[in-house]
Amino acid sequence: MGILLIGGKVVTAVDAYYADVRIENDKIRSIGSDLGKTDDEIIDAHGCYIIPGGIDTHTHFALNVGTMTTADDFKSGTKAAIVGGTTTIIDYATQNKGGSLKEALHAQHEKSAGVCYCDYGFHMGITDWNDEVALEMEEMIKEGVTSFKLYMAYKGNLQVDDGVILKALKKSRETKTLLCFHCENGDVIDELINEAKTKGHISPYYHVRTRPVEAEREAITRLLNFSEIMDTPVYIVHLSSREGLLSILDAKKRGVKVFVETCPQYLLLNDSCYGEEKSDSFEGAKSVISPPLRKDYDQEALWKGISQGEIKTIGSDHCSFNYKGQKDIGINDFTKIPNGAPGVENRMGLIYTYGVVSGKISINEMVAITSTNAAKTFGMFPQKGTIAIGSDADIVVWDPNFKSYITAVNQTQKVDYNLFEGFEQQGRVLHEFLRGNKVISNGELVEKEPLGKYIFRKINK
Amino acid sequence: MGILLIGGKVVTAVDAYYADVRIENDKIRSIGSDLGKTDDEIIDAHGCYIIPGGIDTHTHFALNVGTMTTADDFKSGTKAAIVGGTTTIIDYATQNKGGSLKEALHAQHEKSAGVCYCDYGFHMGITDWNDEVALEMEEMIKEGVTSFKLYMAYKGNLQVDDGVILKALKKSRETKTLLCFHCENGDVIDELINEAKTKGHISPYYHVRTRPVEAEREAITRLLNFSEIMDTPVYIVHLSSREGLLSILDAKKRGVKVFVETCPQYLLLNDSCYGEEKSDSFEGAKSVISPPLRKDYDQEALWKGISQGEIKTIGSDHCSFNYKGQKDIGINDFTKIPNGAPGVENRMGLIYTYGVVSGKISINEMVAITSTNAAKTFGMFPQKGTIAIGSDADIVVWDPNFKSYITAVNQTQKVDYNLFEGFEQQGRVLHEFLRGNKVISNGELVEKEPLGKYIFRKINK
Amino acid sequence: MGILLIGGKVVTAVDAYYADVRIENDKIRSIGSDLGKTDDEIIDAHGCYIIPGGIDTHTHFALNVGTMTTADDFKSGTKAAIVGGTTTIIDYATQNKGGSLKEALHAQHEKSAGVCYCDYGFHMGITDWNDEVALEMEEMIKEGVTSFKLYMAYKGNLQVDDGVILKALKKSRETKTLLCFHCENGDVIDELINEAKTKGHISPYYHVRTRPVEAEREAITRLLNFSEIMDTPVYIVHLSSREGLLSILDAKKRGVKVFVETCPQYLLLNDSCYGEEKSDSFEGAKSVISPPLRKDYDQEALWKGISQGEIKTIGSDHCSFNYKGQKDIGINDFTKIPNGAPGVENRMGLIYTYGVVSGKISINEMVAITSTNAAKTFGMFPQKGTIAIGSDADIVVWDPNFKSYITAVNQTQKVDYNLFEGFEQQGRVLHEFLRGNKVISNGELVEKEPLGKYIFRKINK
Amino acid sequence: MGILLIGGKVVTAVDAYYADVRIENDKIRSIGSDLGKTDDEIIDAHGCYIIPGGIDTHTHFALNVGTMTTADDFKSGTKAAIVGGTTTIIDYATQNKGGSLKEALHAQHEKSAGVCYCDYGFHMGITDWNDEVALEMEEMIKEGVTSFKLYMAYKGNLQVDDGVILKALKKSRETKTLLCFHCENGDVIDELINEAKTKGHISPYYHVRTRPVEAEREAITRLLNFSEIMDTPVYIVHLSSREGLLSILDAKKRGVKVFVETCPQYLLLNDSCYGEEKSDSFEGAKSVISPPLRKDYDQEALWKGISQGEIKTIGSDHCSFNYKGQKDIGINDFTKIPNGAPGVENRMGLIYTYGVVSGKISINEMVAITSTNAAKTFGMFPQKGTIAIGSDADIVVWDPNFKSYITAVNQTQKVDYNLFEGFEQQGRVLHEFLRGNKVISNGELVEKEPLGKYIFRKINK
Repeated sequence: MGILLIGGKVVTAVDAYYADVRIENDKIRSIGSDLGKTDDEIIDAHGCYIIPGGIDTHTHFALNVGTMTTADDFKSGTKAAIVGGTTTIIDYATQNKGGSLKEALHAQHEKSAGVCYCDYGFHMGITDWNDEVALEMEEMIKEGVTSFKLYMAYKGNLQVDDGVILKALKKSRETKTLLCFHCENGDVIDELINEAKTKGHISPYYHVRTRPVEAEREAITRLLNFSEIMDTPVYIVHLSSREGLLSILDAKKRGVKVFVETCPQYLLLNDSCYGEEKSDSFEGAKSVISPPLRKDYDQEALWKGISQGEIKTIGSDHCSFNYKGQKDIGINDFTKIPNGAPGVENRMGLIYTYGVVSGKISINEMVAITSTNAAKTFGMFPQKGTIAIGSDADIVVWDPNFKSYITAVNQTQKVDYNLFEGFEQQGRVLHEFLRGNKVISNGELVEKEPLGKYIFRKINK
Repeated sequence: MGILLIGGKVVTAVDAYYADVRIENDKIRSIGSDLGKTDDEIIDAHGCYIIPGGIDTHTHFALNVGTMTTADDFKSGTKAAIVGGTTTIIDYATQNKGGSLKEALHAQHEKSAGVCYCDYGFHMGITDWNDEVALEMEEMIKEGVTSFKLYMAYKGNLQVDDGVILKALKKSRETKTLLCFHCENGDVIDELINEAKTKGHISPYYHVRTRPVEAEREAITRLLNFSEIMDTPVYIVHLSSREGLLSILDAKKRGVKVFVETCPQYLLLNDSCYGEEKSDSFEGAKSVISPPLRKDYDQEALWKGISQGEIKTIGSDHCSFNYKGQKDIGINDFTKIPNGAPGVENRMGLIYTYGVVSGKISINEMVAITSTNAAKTFGMFPQKGTIAIGSDADIVVWDPNFKSYITAVNQTQKVDYNLFEGFEQQGRVLHEFLRGNKVISNGELVEKEPLGKYIFRKINK
Repeated sequence: MGILLIGGKVVTAVDAYYADVRIENDKIRSIGSDLGKTDDEIIDAHGCYIIPGGIDTHTHFALNVGTMTTADDFKSGTKAAIVGGTTTIIDYATQNKGGSLKEALHAQHEKSAGVCYCDYGFHMGITDWNDEVALEMEEMIKEGVTSFKLYMAYKGNLQVDDGVILKALKKSRETKTLLCFHCENGDVIDELINEAKTKGHISPYYHVRTRPVEAEREAITRLLNFSEIMDTPVYIVHLSSREGLLSILDAKKRGVKVFVETCPQYLLLNDSCYGEEKSDSFEGAKSVISPPLRKDYDQEALWKGISQGEIKTIGSDHCSFNYKGQKDIGINDFTKIPNGAPGVENRMGLIYTYGVVSGKISINEMVAITSTNAAKTFGMFPQKGTIAIGSDADIVVWDPNFKSYITAVNQTQKVDYNLFEGFEQQGRVLHEFLRGNKVISNGELVEKEPLGKYIFRKINK
Repeated sequence: MGILLIGGKVVTAVDAYYADVRIENDKIRSIGSDLGKTDDEIIDAHGCYIIPGGIDTHTHFALNVGTMTTADDFKSGTKAAIVGGTTTIIDYATQNKGGSLKEALHAQHEKSAGVCYCDYGFHMGITDWNDEVALEMEEMIKEGVTSFKLYMAYKGNLQVDDGVILKALKKSRETKTLLCFHCENGDVIDELINEAKTKGHISPYYHVRTRPVEAEREAITRLLNFSEIMDTPVYIVHLSSREGLLSILDAKKRGVKVFVETCPQYLLLNDSCYGEEKSDSFEGAKSVISPPLRKDYDQEALWKGISQGEIKTIGSDHCSFNYKGQKDIGINDFTKIPNGAPGVENRMGLIYTYGVVSGKISINEMVAITSTNAAKTFGMFPQKGTIAIGSDADIVVWDPNFKSYITAVNQTQKVDYNLFEGFEQQGRVLHEFLRGNKVISNGELVEKEPLGKYIFRKINK
C-alpha cells in the first residue's frame, strides 16, 4: 500500500511539470501517469505545487545563552518547522569552553531525542580550539556531523582568532568537512560599543550603529583570504549586507569557492525596526539580532544575489526570546538584550510570498534555496531536498492561493512576538509528508507524535 | 506500447538517481519502479546515465560566406549532432544587407527542411537595422524565432554600430526576445590587421595577434553598459577569455543580467595551435576561428566560470571549412582564411571527458550546460532539456566506460580535419532517442531517415 | 630695473615660504632675501600669496556653433581670464568637415591675434579624420599645437567612430602629442533623446535625463581600453561623475596612463539646476552643458579625486551663450539649446574659496591643479605654471582675505548670467603680472592693451 | 659669509631650473642670479643637480633583536646615510613589553645622542597597548615623536590584535598623529611555518614560501577597513607586492586615505635570491627580510605605483646583520635567521640609477619620493625636504655622470655584505651640506664629527 498524490505540479530546483507522485513506505517510488495501485491512498493535489519539504539550515533551539534559555525548545521549534513546511532543520550544537565536541553533541542529542516533529541534524560550533578538537572533527563525521561553525564576533566569548580559523580550515580541507562562519569583526564591534556606552547610548537603536556593515565586510574579506590561502571552501551564515556580498563576489573573481546563506529577515526588514535615535520605545529589542537589519538597498542586493545564484541557502536563524521577560533584561543596556529572533515557522511562506509571488525568483529557485541546495551543501542529498525516485518522501503540497496574515497570536513557535507581524502571506502548506508520514492534512497538524529522526549527514565527495 | 529504459541512472541538472524511464509515443510518461506495460520494448541501461539529449546553441550549417560555403550542410551537420548525443541544434539564419528577416528565415528553412537528423531551431542574425526590421522582430516570434544576434566585429560586413545595438536592445525589451552578441571590437581588429599587413605579417600566427583579449573585453564591457542603460538582459556567445569573464562579473556586481556561452575549443585548446612566429606551417589555419584560441589561464578561468555558474551554455560554434580547398584560400593572407571550425559531433564527449571525468564539473552540471540551460534560455523548456514527465523523449543513454580517440578519419561531420584530433574521449552514446524514436542503438546510427523537426521557440515569460 | 615683490608667501605646487621675488624684464630672476636693486619697483605683498598665474585648459571663445556664436570672443574672454587671475588659456580650434587642420588653426589665429589680454594656446579639434589629417598632426607640432581633441559624443556632427579614435591614438603615440577626449557615448544620448522626444519631453529638465552617467562611464571605459591597446596616454576633459572616475581608477589599476580634467561647475553645482520635472521654468537652460551637472555624491567624488591626485587639471570649459537671445532658441526643445556656460573669470576664485578655504585641498594643490599641472601636461613648463627662476613672470598676488559675491552684474565676461550667481568668494587678485607686465593693480585692470601672446607649446619628452 | 652654489640645476618635487643657491648659516637664503656676497665660498655645481638631502623614512640602527644586535649602530648607520646622500633618517624606537614609550624613547636617545652624522628622528613602535600608552602618545608629541608603528605580524612578539589597532587608530585620530603599519598577517605566517617545519623545510628558500603575498594583502585590506571605520589615515611601511597595491587602490576608490612606502629591494630584487628548493646554499639568508622579496611583476607594479603617485615614500628598512656570525644562526632553521638587510647607503643611488636614468620616473619624482614626501608626511616640512628659502640647507650636489659599482668591499655601512652587490650605479654625491655644513666634498666625507641633530617632528595640521 502506498500514497498517490494526483494532479499536482511537481517542482524541483530545475523542473516543473504535472504528474502524479507515488509514495511507498518512506520513499518516493514513482512519478508520472498510471502509477496507482489498488490499495493506494489518494491525495488530491490539483492546483497545488508538490515540492520537497523545506530544510532550515540554521536554528538555535533550547539554546542557553548564560543568563537564560531560548523560548523555543526542540519540541516547539520543530513543530513550528513542520507547520511552516520545513521537514528538516539543522541546529547548532556548541562546544563549551574547556569542553569537548563529543560532550556538546551528547548534550544536544539529549535535548532533542524523541521530541522533534521534523528531522534534524547538527552543525557543531567550535569555541575552544586545541589539538584534541582537531581530532574530534574526524570523530564527528562518524556521528553524522560534517559541518562546523566558527565565530569571528563575540569577543571574549565565542570569537576565535585568526590562528584558530587557519588551523580549522586546514583540518576542514583534510576531512572534507565544511566550515561555517559568523562573519562580523568582534573587535570592531567591541570598540564601537565602548564608544557608544561612553556616550550613554543604551537603547536598541545603538545595536545597529555598533555593528556596521564594515564589520561584516571586513570579516568576510579576511575569511575569504584565508579560504584562498588554505585552499578550502567556506560557508558564510546569515549574510546581511550588500557590501558583504560585493566582497564575496570579488573573492569569487579570484576563484575562491564560497557558499552563502541569508535569512528572510535580511530580505524583508530594515533598520527602521530599531526606531528613532531619541525614542523611548524598546520595541527595537525584538529585532536585536546579529548581524543587525540593514538598509533597503541591502535587501535589494541580497534578492539579486539569490536570483544570480550567488546566495544558495536560506536559514531562519531562529533563536527566539520573549519580548517580555527575556529581551527586556536589556532595557537599560542594549548590549544585554539576548540576540536572536524567531522565524522557523515563516521561512517558506515568506520566500514564497515575497520571492515567488512578487516575481523576484521562480518557484524552482524557491525549491533550490529553501531545500535542495541545503541538502547538497550539507551532505543530505539525495535523501533530502528533492522530489526524486528513492528520496525520502518529505513532501509539501503547497496551495498557492490561500491568503493569510502572519501574527504571533496563532503561531506555533512558542514566543510572544513575531518579527513579521502583520505581513501578508500567500500560499500555505495544504498537506505535508515526513518520510511518507502524513503530518499536515488540509492545513492542520494531524500527526501529534514527534516523528523526527536524527539525520547522519555525509561528507561531500 | 512504449519503451522502458531499465536500470540506468537518471540525471537532470539537479538530480541523479536510479530509476526506470518509460516513454510512450514521443514523450516521457513515467519514472520509477514497476512501470512496465506488457508490450513495452525494454532497453537495458544498467551502468549508464540517462540524460537529456544535448542542445547545441550555436551552429552554422550550409553557411555561405561569400567566397564559399561551409563543408557541412544541415544533413551532415545534424547527423553528426545525433552521433555525438545532441538532439537539438540552434542554427543561425542571417539577414542579408538590404534583405528582410523573413527572407533570411525562409532561406534557412529551405536549406534545412526535410534533411535534418536532429530537431532544430533558428536564431536570426541582424546585419542591416531599420524600422521594418524592428517590426519583423515581432513577426519572427510567431515563426518560432525568439533570439537575435548582432555582431560587434567584422567591420564593413556584419558589424553594427552602437546606435543599432541600443535600438535593438530597446526592441528586445519590448518583445521579451533575447539578443545574442558576438563581442569583439571590430575597429580594434581592423586597425591591428592594418598594422600587421603593413609589416608583411600574413601567416595564421597573426590571426590571434590581431584579435587580442582586449578587443573582446572592450566589446563585452560596452555591451553590458548598454544592457544596463536599456534595462534588458543579453546573451554573450562564445566567450573566450578570462578578461572577458572578469568584465562580465564586474557588470553582474552592478546587477546586470547576462547569459554566457562558451565552446569546447576555448576550454581545451590554446593559442599554441597557431604555431610559431617564424614557422612556414599553415596548420594554424585549422584553428582560425573568432574569437581566437587563448591561453591556458583563460581555459582555467572559463572552467571556473562554469563551475561557479557564471557560464550557462556550451555551443560548438560549428562552422566547418575543409583545410584543403577552403582554408587554404588564405595561404598568403591570414585574413582571407574562412573563420570557423567543426565541433558539433564532439561537444558532449569532450565535456564529459574533460569536465566530468576530470572532476571539474559534476554530471548534473554537464546536463545543465549541455542541455537544460540552453532549453530554458532559448524558450524550449520543458519540451526539451530535461528528463521529466511530459517532456520530449530526447534521451541519451550514456555509457561512461567506453574509451576512444577523436579523429577526423571516422567522423560523421563532413570536413577533412578535427580540431581535437587525437584527443582521448571517455564515454559515448550507447542508445539515443529523438522524441521517442530510437536513432542510435548500441553506438550505431540506426535511423537512416532525417526525423528532425523545426522547433518553434517561445518567449520567456 | 626690475620689480620686487616683498613680504609675500611664495607658493608652488610643492613649496610655500616667505620670500621676496624679483622680476627682471619678463622673467623671474631671483627669490629670497636682499634681492633688491636700487631702481626696482617695490610691490608690497605682505599678507598675500604669490602664486603662478592660472592656466585655463579649456575655453571656447568666439565659437560658432552653426546657429550662433558664443557671447564671449577672445577679447572679452581673455580680459575676464586676467581679471580672474588666469594668465594663460588654451582654446579649441576645430577642424571643419572637409577642412584641414591648418585652415582651422589659421581661422583661430585670425580671431585671436592682437586682441588677447592673456597668453593663449590652441588645442586642435579633429572631426574629419583622413590620412592628410594624420600628416597635419605633425605639422601642427611646428605650429605649437601639441594636443588634439576628439569627440565621442555629438553623433552626426563632431563624433568620431572607434576606428578614428584608434588611428588617432596610434598617430599620437608616434608624434608624442596628447589626445583629449570628450567622453560621452553619443549613440546612447541620441537614443535617449529620441525616447524623450517621443514622450513630448522638451524642457531643460530632460537634458540631464538624456545624458546619464552611464553614457560617460561607457565612453571612458572604452577609451581607456583603446589607450591600453594602443599603448598611449590620453587626457579626459571635463570629467563630471563618480562612475566615470571609478572607471578611470579601474583602468589605472591595469597601468593605463590617463590625465583627468574637471571643471568648477562639476565640483560645485548639481542637477537641481535643471529644475523640477513639471516646472515651466526655463532657468535650467543656463546649466545646459555637456556633460550635464550631476549629484552631490559626484561632486564629493571629484573633490576626493583631486585631493588623491587622480584629477590633475581644472578647466572652465567656458563657452558662453546669453540666456536671452541665445539659450532661448531652445525654449520648446531642449536639444536646441546651445550647450555651454561661462566660467573663465571665476575658476581661480571658486577653487580658492571652495577648495582651499573649505579645507578640501591645500594652497599647494590649488597651484598644482589651476596652473602647474596644466603647464606640464600641455608642454608649457617651466615657461608657465610655476614660480621659479627663469620662468615667465606670470604672477598673481592673491589677497586671501578679501570677500565678495559672484554676480553677473559686475562681471567682465560678456554674457548675461553667471552660473555661480550669488556664490560667496573669498580672496581675490590684488596684483597680477603677465610676463612681468603689471596688468592688475590693487584689484583693478590697469593694463588696457591686449598684451597676450600665442604660446608655442612643446611635445613632452 | 655664506656659501654660493653656482651653475647647478635646482630640482624640487615640482621644479627644475638653472640657478645659483646661496646658503647663509644653516638655511637657504636665496636662489637666482647675482646673489653672491664678496666673502661667500663658491661651490661649482655646473653639470650637477642641486637636490634636497634624502630622508630615509625607515631605519633600524643598533636594534637588539633578543639574540643579537644589528651590525650597524647609529654611528656607522648615519655615516653611511650621509655618504649615500641622505641627510635625515627616521629610526624606530620600540616599546618593550611591560615598558613605557618614554623608556623606549629615552633608550633610543641614549644610543643616538652625539654619534649621528645625519639628522634623525624617531617613530615609536607600540607593542603593548594599554590606557597609559594611549596617554603617552600625547606626551610623545611634545618629544617630537608624531608617528607610531604597529605590527600585524610577528605573533607572540610584536604583533598586536585588532582591538589594539582600533584603539590606536582612535587615539591617532584624536591626536592627529600618524600610525604606521607592518602589514602581514602573522597568524597566516605562523601556520605556514608550522606546515613547513612539519615537512622538514628549513632552508632560506622557505622564508618566502611561508610569507605569501596573500598574507600581506589580507593585512592591508583589514587595516584599510579599520582606517575607514575609524576615519583616520594610515601609513603602510615597506609595501612589497602588486596584490597589496591593488588592495590599496580598491580602498582608495572608497575614499580611504593611505600613505604608502616601499623600499629599493622590493623594486629591484626578486625571490630568486632565495635560491632553488633543493639547493644547499645558505646565500638566501642575506635576503631574509620581511616581507620577503617577490616577483618581477611585483617590481613592475611598484614602479608603476610610484609613477602614478600611489606610493609616496622610499625607506631603506636598513636593518643589517652580518652574514657570517649573525645570519648563520639560522643555518638549520630559516625561522631563526634574523630578519633584515642593509641599504641606507644605497637608497639614493639606486633610485637615481634604476628610476631616473632608466626613465621610469623623473628627477622631480625622485626628489619627491626620496625626500619631500617624507618631510611632508612626517612633520618636518618645510624645514626638511626641499630647496626653498628658509629651509635647512640640507643639500646634495648630485653629479649625474659618475659611474660605479655597488659592493660591500668599500661600503660605509658596517656589515659584511650588500644586497645589491655588483649593481651598477650612475651618479653620486659630489658635495653635500647638512644644515649648511659641508659634509661631503668631491665625493669624500670631509666632516669627521657627527653633526646630526635630533629633529622634533610636528603634527600635520
